[in-house]
Amino acid sequence: MIKIAVDCFGGDHSPNANIDGALLALARFPDLFVVLCGDEAIINAYLSQKKYDKERVSVLHAPEVIDCNEKPTDAIRLKKESSMMKAVRMLREDETLSGLVSTGSTGALVAAATLRVGRLKGVIRPTFCPIMPTMNGGIVAVCDSGANVDITPDYLQQYAIMGSLYMKKVYGMKDVRVALLNIGVEEEKGDDLRKKAYELLSNTPDIHFIGNMESRDLLSGKYDLVVCDGFSGNVLIKATEGTALEMLKKLKRDISSRLLYKIGAFFMLKMFREEKAFMDYRNYGGSVLLGTKKVVVKGHGSSNDTAVFKCIEQAYRMEQGSLPSQIEMALDALPRQKKAEDLPTSEA
Amino acid sequence: MIKIAVDCFGGDHSPNANIDGALLALARFPDLFVVLCGDEAIINAYLSQKKYDKERVSVLHAPEVIDCNEKPTDAIRLKKESSMMKAVRMLREDETLSGLVSTGSTGALVAAATLRVGRLKGVIRPTFCPIMPTMNGGIVAVCDSGANVDITPDYLQQYAIMGSLYMKKVYGMKDVRVALLNIGVEEEKGDDLRKKAYELLSNTPDIHFIGNMESRDLLSGKYDLVVCDGFSGNVLIKATEGTALEMLKKLKRDISSRLLYKIGAFFMLKMFREEKAFMDYRNYGGSVLLGTKKVVVKGHGSSNDTAVFKCIEQAYRMEQGSLPSQIEMALDALPRQKKAEDLPTSEA
Repeated sequence: MIKIAVDCFGGDHSPNANIDGALLALARFPDLFVVLCGDEAIINAYLSQKKYDKERVSVLHAPEVIDCNEKPTDAIRLKKESSMMKAVRMLREDETLSGLVSTGSTGALVAAATLRVGRLKGVIRPTFCPIMPTMNGGIVAVCDSGANVDITPDYLQQYAIMGSLYMKKVYGMKDVRVALLNIGVEEEKGDDLRKKAYELLSNTPDIHFIGNMESRDLLSGKYDLVVCDGFSGNVLIKATEGTALEMLKKLKRDISSRLLYKIGAFFMLKMFREEKAFMDYRNYGGSVLLGTKKVVVKGHGSSNDTAVFKCIEQAYRMEQGSLPSQIEMALDALPRQKKAEDLPTSEA
Repeated sequence: MIKIAVDCFGGDHSPNANIDGALLALARFPDLFVVLCGDEAIINAYLSQKKYDKERVSVLHAPEVIDCNEKPTDAIRLKKESSMMKAVRMLREDETLSGLVSTGSTGALVAAATLRVGRLKGVIRPTFCPIMPTMNGGIVAVCDSGANVDITPDYLQQYAIMGSLYMKKVYGMKDVRVALLNIGVEEEKGDDLRKKAYELLSNTPDIHFIGNMESRDLLSGKYDLVVCDGFSGNVLIKATEGTALEMLKKLKRDISSRLLYKIGAFFMLKMFREEKAFMDYRNYGGSVLLGTKKVVVKGHGSSNDTAVFKCIEQAYRMEQGSLPSQIEMALDALPRQKKAEDLPTSEA
């Protein structure tokens, strides 16, 4: 049995979408057990209208909810009875619980999971890793998208190792092509961090490093995993998503501006629907935290039931593939001088 | 008379597009004089087929061309007889020459102009500043897009001052809304550099700093000038441009996939042409180098005659608005401790 906690409060469509997503996952995976976290009365009232395997569901009561605008440090300190913090505490204390899925505040989740659940042995800092669709129908992961803004080349090496294992275990990739985000593709490009990272990645065993990538090529389908500092990763992800969405909005506005265009668009309704679905992050699951002792997945705030289901599936597959222990083993196998294993693995 | 040099070799459509662009500018601005740089025989042969005011054109012979793939340092050292390097030398030596427009290698141009033409008094490092279209029909400038990857808050302050003056002088903006690229809009977001820059920008007189900007909002029309380090600026610009172009390509591919879509698209030909023009950087002029003693504009490698014309117009307006001396005066007016005026202003 794989046991996953689902934080049912915090997203735009919570708790219903989160509960429905959990029930979809229960129906799909016969060895899945879910712990629904949040206001017991509300969750039970909603569940009472549904049909599902009651043997594989429990509810963890939590009366409070963390607001998206709360400072992560305040949320952790002051909202101890919130659905997210109670779920994180359970993740820390309950050995049978493998992972957590949440659609709540990203900052609070990353901070709480990193501090309370703790790092895997050897991990310098956990990294936050979203997935984007590529233009040829594939996907590409970005490590790190904002968890760590001040980094050294060692971080990037660990992102490459952890991210490669993630893409193999969850998406069944055989060969994960890793690239370093840079301002040009030539080896000598970038600042000192990038030059040192290029060399380190080139000499890291068991990853397939194929060189530098320019941000314009993220969706090209030529890369499976991009490693970068959290600042430029955040700029990369948001600029790519933002531009795609702005383009679709502009197209919609322009079509509405003339009858002739509306007639033309009528022939293309299905296509436009597909374009929209293509850029809808809800169709690609959530961002995962790599490097923590337990599996953590953050779904988008606007997640519907399918999106929550996909997040639970990600957590399930990570645990099924023993991702945490695989990461520990891979980091342990690195040449001595490159390890960070003497660091404490938990701060609280 | 405003005298501008045009490097006629180096772009995809050079020399013809560059010469044609120069002739368009001559026709538009009666007090413009252009110096066409490159192979004299080729330039004169092309000019002999054209009608233009011969009194306002001269040719600077340069037999070599810098290749896009050459390392900038090699290009500067080894290609002294190239059109770009001879133009840069003339810019340094001829006091009556105000500026240079090139569609050749960006790295070589930025390096040569910075090193050979030299910085304005008080400027720490010149910055490379492109323009992007916004979704509401306006434009936004980004400083820096890759010239300086290791920076301090002082750089960002200078970018804000220089960029604001540029937007006022060249685009006639009255109020230039300046934002700092960051991983969130809240004041406390980002690393140490961003936090210090936020405070410094908030306390800089004569600029209109409106806070942090997330990369997804670059095209929103809410900002006129974005300041950032050259690494994340490069990621921002290329991710935004790249995604927009990939989206258009995908749309084109998808339309071709079904007859029904092709019929629909037929009604929308004009609209699609407009979408393409909207994202075509050639319609927005080139990237300018801010902080050098003379005006330098870099057009895209694929520039056609209109694009080259727009670059010349930018250089013309910068000089017409006395941008270099305006920048020196603005930096000189800064509170003492924030100035970098004791730095040498030229390195060669």
